[in-house]
Amino acid sequence: MGGSVVDREAVLAANQAFYQAFEEGNLDVMFDLWEHTPRVLCTHPGWPALHGWMHVAESWRRLMEQTERPQFIITGQRVEVVGDTAWLSCEENLLTANLNATVSALNVFVLGDGSWRIVAHHASPIAR
Amino acid sequence: MGGSVVDREAVLAANQAFYQAFEEGNLDVMFDLWEHTPRVLCTHPGWPALHGWMHVAESWRRLMEQTERPQFIITGQRVEVVGDTAWLSCEENLLTANLNATVSALNVFVLGDGSWRIVAHHASPIAR
Repeated sequence: MGGSVVDREAVLAANQAFYQAFEEGNLDVMFDLWEHTPRVLCTHPGWPALHGWMHVAESWRRLMEQTERPQFIITGQRVEVVGDTAWLSCEENLLTANLNATVSALNVFVLGDGSWRIVAHHASPIAR
Repeated sequence: MGGSVVDREAVLAANQAFYQAFEEGNLDVMFDLWEHTPRVLCTHPGWPALHGWMHVAESWRRLMEQTERPQFIITGQRVEVVGDTAWLSCEENLLTANLNATVSALNVFVLGDGSWRIVAHHASPIAR
């Protein structure tokens, strides 16, 4: 496994903050976790990829406005660090009033100004 | 956009070789494009993530044994390079006898021994 323990722990912490921000509807924290650049991308389950911070931010604004946000139980986190880049895979176990589902996610982070920020999030439902 | 033109072109070439190998059922080329390490992961559409080269290789062996492999028209390739890591997003437009579908893909590459090799592939169907 590449990367120092410090880097790996920092990426795991950023990943946990990401799901916590989503669960709590905390848009400020969510926005701060992302790199605000044209190169970021986000693929929500079943969606095409959104490119660029402007489009990605708008999608989070809309998703997090929903009154019924899912609860997440995150399992199977695996993080790899190469230089200033990291990728992390995990399962998002979603609990809502109407639906339980498991989503496979791949998140890519880049270290900049001392913080690991998300540059790519790709989530897709696991078929039963 | 980070990375030299040379790096970006090399990642794009590896990505094209990946889909061509799948289309042609060329397991040797497919295997050579991947890093053969425990840290690789692969999420086929609707599947949970497979971890480690042994499991990833077995999935490709089985998928590529199928006599009816899809044809791919790859669109919207975007590549970003940070140091020795790159991520590439694209749409896989699949044509088979029975089904046309579009899949959103995120592929992560790492440079080692002069070659960009796949460390993560995540593909998910785009809902119509």
